[in-house]
Amino acid sequence: MIKIKVLDKPKLKEPVLICGLPGSGYVAKIAVDFLVSELKATPLATIYSYHFPPHVLIRADGSAELSKHEVSYVLGQNRDLLLYTGDSQPVNPEAEYELSNKVLDLAEELGVKRVFTLAAYITGQFVKTPRVFGTATNPELLKTLIQSGASVMSEGTITGMNGLMIGLAALRGMDGACLLGETSGYVMDPKASYAVLSLLKRVLGLDLDLTPLEERAKQGEVLRSILESMRKSASEAQPEKKDLGYIS
Amino acid sequence: MIKIKVLDKPKLKEPVLICGLPGSGYVAKIAVDFLVSELKATPLATIYSYHFPPHVLIRADGSAELSKHEVSYVLGQNRDLLLYTGDSQPVNPEAEYELSNKVLDLAEELGVKRVFTLAAYITGQFVKTPRVFGTATNPELLKTLIQSGASVMSEGTITGMNGLMIGLAALRGMDGACLLGETSGYVMDPKASYAVLSLLKRVLGLDLDLTPLEERAKQGEVLRSILESMRKSASEAQPEKKDLGYIS
Amino acid sequence: MIKIKVLDKPKLKEPVLICGLPGSGYVAKIAVDFLVSELKATPLATIYSYHFPPHVLIRADGSAELSKHEVSYVLGQNRDLLLYTGDSQPVNPEAEYELSNKVLDLAEELGVKRVFTLAAYITGQFVKTPRVFGTATNPELLKTLIQSGASVMSEGTITGMNGLMIGLAALRGMDGACLLGETSGYVMDPKASYAVLSLLKRVLGLDLDLTPLEERAKQGEVLRSILESMRKSASEAQPEKKDLGYIS
Amino acid sequence: MIKIKVLDKPKLKEPVLICGLPGSGYVAKIAVDFLVSELKATPLATIYSYHFPPHVLIRADGSAELSKHEVSYVLGQNRDLLLYTGDSQPVNPEAEYELSNKVLDLAEELGVKRVFTLAAYITGQFVKTPRVFGTATNPELLKTLIQSGASVMSEGTITGMNGLMIGLAALRGMDGACLLGETSGYVMDPKASYAVLSLLKRVLGLDLDLTPLEERAKQGEVLRSILESMRKSASEAQPEKKDLGYIS
Repeated sequence: MIKIKVLDKPKLKEPVLICGLPGSGYVAKIAVDFLVSELKATPLATIYSYHFPPHVLIRADGSAELSKHEVSYVLGQNRDLLLYTGDSQPVNPEAEYELSNKVLDLAEELGVKRVFTLAAYITGQFVKTPRVFGTATNPELLKTLIQSGASVMSEGTITGMNGLMIGLAALRGMDGACLLGETSGYVMDPKASYAVLSLLKRVLGLDLDLTPLEERAKQGEVLRSILESMRKSASEAQPEKKDLGYIS
Repeated sequence: MIKIKVLDKPKLKEPVLICGLPGSGYVAKIAVDFLVSELKATPLATIYSYHFPPHVLIRADGSAELSKHEVSYVLGQNRDLLLYTGDSQPVNPEAEYELSNKVLDLAEELGVKRVFTLAAYITGQFVKTPRVFGTATNPELLKTLIQSGASVMSEGTITGMNGLMIGLAALRGMDGACLLGETSGYVMDPKASYAVLSLLKRVLGLDLDLTPLEERAKQGEVLRSILESMRKSASEAQPEKKDLGYIS
Repeated sequence: MIKIKVLDKPKLKEPVLICGLPGSGYVAKIAVDFLVSELKATPLATIYSYHFPPHVLIRADGSAELSKHEVSYVLGQNRDLLLYTGDSQPVNPEAEYELSNKVLDLAEELGVKRVFTLAAYITGQFVKTPRVFGTATNPELLKTLIQSGASVMSEGTITGMNGLMIGLAALRGMDGACLLGETSGYVMDPKASYAVLSLLKRVLGLDLDLTPLEERAKQGEVLRSILESMRKSASEAQPEKKDLGYIS
Repeated sequence: MIKIKVLDKPKLKEPVLICGLPGSGYVAKIAVDFLVSELKATPLATIYSYHFPPHVLIRADGSAELSKHEVSYVLGQNRDLLLYTGDSQPVNPEAEYELSNKVLDLAEELGVKRVFTLAAYITGQFVKTPRVFGTATNPELLKTLIQSGASVMSEGTITGMNGLMIGLAALRGMDGACLLGETSGYVMDPKASYAVLSLLKRVLGLDLDLTPLEERAKQGEVLRSILESMRKSASEAQPEKKDLGYIS
């Protein structure tokens, strides 16, 4: 059971759908959440489903609420945006396909011909400047991504709805592209989100101030390097353990 | 397949639904089982489902029976109660949503506008006086809980039907609240059930003698502390192991 | 998808359904397979299902075949028997309920009013003379089992279709009973099957020669005790390891 | 949801269906992929399904695409071939049955009366000359396989659609056979694919040049033996560790 409650039916010009559902490092969700708040997006649809995790979430104000997904829109100069994110991905694979298609139905109705998803490219390593990888369902769009600075992959999979959405978009004649921000996969990674949005901004020519997200990324970075140096000195402070290594 | 066999269709005044399905420490189930027996509740509906665990339960008299859920009711002075508990939660997430909605359908038909669920707040620690946490689907109800002594959470999830029931209630315009009793999560915890019901009694102004449950909680406590002190002396009796700790 | 292919529609007198699907120690399946071959049962229905494990089985002659279930019947003096067994249990819980009900539909059509299932009572221990435990969905039938020598349980569950079948039978007004043979759970255990059938024979007054199964149980026992004594001497031959135990 | 997009409806003479979906060592998929390219098969149908893994695959050119299955055909002298392979097997058992039956529906429509599947026979050992095991759903076909050099199994299972397809084919009156190439199960194993196709070629009298696959198998073999000897010297170079073995 998937229930899409449509709150608004705006006329949109050349809308592009941008999806970022939660995944590794919350790279995609942080990015789309940022777009929603920075661009003051207007709610368009709320989605509830039996396929979301069977729980209520406690929000910051102490209240309880079901997991949900939200589609919102932003009117732009030349082009409008549809933004799609939510609390969690469906709990079973079939529902990931089904929900992706339902959201694409809605997007198609609203005139969307191009779908961008965001995702994480997990390396298990912390890096100073995360790369952004790009893939697309057609060669021209892939070329555009590369010209905008995206690295290319030649194998692998993009798991979950951030992958499925572009694959299913292609089946119905839309263009699909995914931008993946390099991330360790260990922590929430706004720096990867920043990298991804910087590239998306270039590709779509968005009028978007990324400074607030850059700040958040820097703060996260400072915190992370403090934690890392603490961990480092802690392990340097235990030489005895290493010396006994040959016994154990 | 979910089959609700309705045994009785009472007229109820301002009924409140109180749910406590089995979960950690059996906090919720012990509490509602106590309400059912102490308030001599009348059976209202029996629920069987293909989504319950695929087994029969051996009852204390040696007989075998399918897992089932039961709704019963209690006529009160100003307000009647609907009580809902059962042997186990559904085995798949989608069925937890579906069953919650079916029980809410029944409750709505009977005039319920407010749903309380009980649950466990797991800490991994044994405590003398368990706290009771509260959350609600609307701010006024949350305020009421806090005024009655509930602690507030600002993040987390309530998993399973004890969480879903209030989230789904809110979607259909009912109020939902959950009271969570602090518990280690390791053992059946009637003390947490007692704490939760004490607070619920205040919130709903219930005419309810909690003494028998308090007794059971105390007995459980005595047993637990004996077990704990036995474990403690056992570990104190093995100093050698610790001394050799640096080798292994 | 469950497909029951009915091969024969015999008129049966007071038929009793005896089920033994594969489970721990193959106690139940060995027993019903023995009844089928010893009583020369006639095939009545073949069952295929999308819910069986997704594989083909290689039979002893090298050929390949889908997993299937089979119902067969035996005409007796006073009472006829329906026998039900198969290659494997369904892969999901909902399907265990669904299939149990479909087989009970067939049994009901054929006049069955009493359902016996066989199962394993797992102890993790090897015993000389396995006990047989009994449970039933009504008190009189339970009393009959006890009078025939069954031990009683006062808690626990019987998992899978050997449990569900009697619980679901009770819901439709049939009697249900389960006989559980004590078994270690580690190996195929024809001795437990023999114990279970000995008791079932008494309960139902069956005209049944159990000698061939008793022989098989004895052979299994000899093999097992050889293996056990081999394992024992092997562990006695390694005193060094124990001496070093305090280091590691 | 399974969607079969039929691209072509050729008239085929005595077509035989050959299936090889991905499994251990990719034995079956490598073999059918080879047939498709070597025999220049013509696309006949493309299959998408909600039951495939929820991801997009990155292809070698950097583009992204949904998992899919493909049926293609090859016109032969006396007999035409239908070839069936794909990116992955369905994620749930029921869907493996359902998809197998849908492909068999298509095959039956096209006149197929005999289904061959390929699979892996996993031993955990590297061997110079992998054996090929055969099984069939009827005795004559099994005899043919044996006469062509197949070894016989007397127990076990063939898991997944490479097993199911022949079991389900038999239920609808088709012949089914499976050829299993011996493989370690640890690595992609074109040598096992080569062994399997060599035998299939004999059984079906195929006009097929296996040299390119033989070459690929040899290259894989060279690479594997280099890796193995490297691993061997590496472990020989650590005698200290072994000497301390009695302490740890």
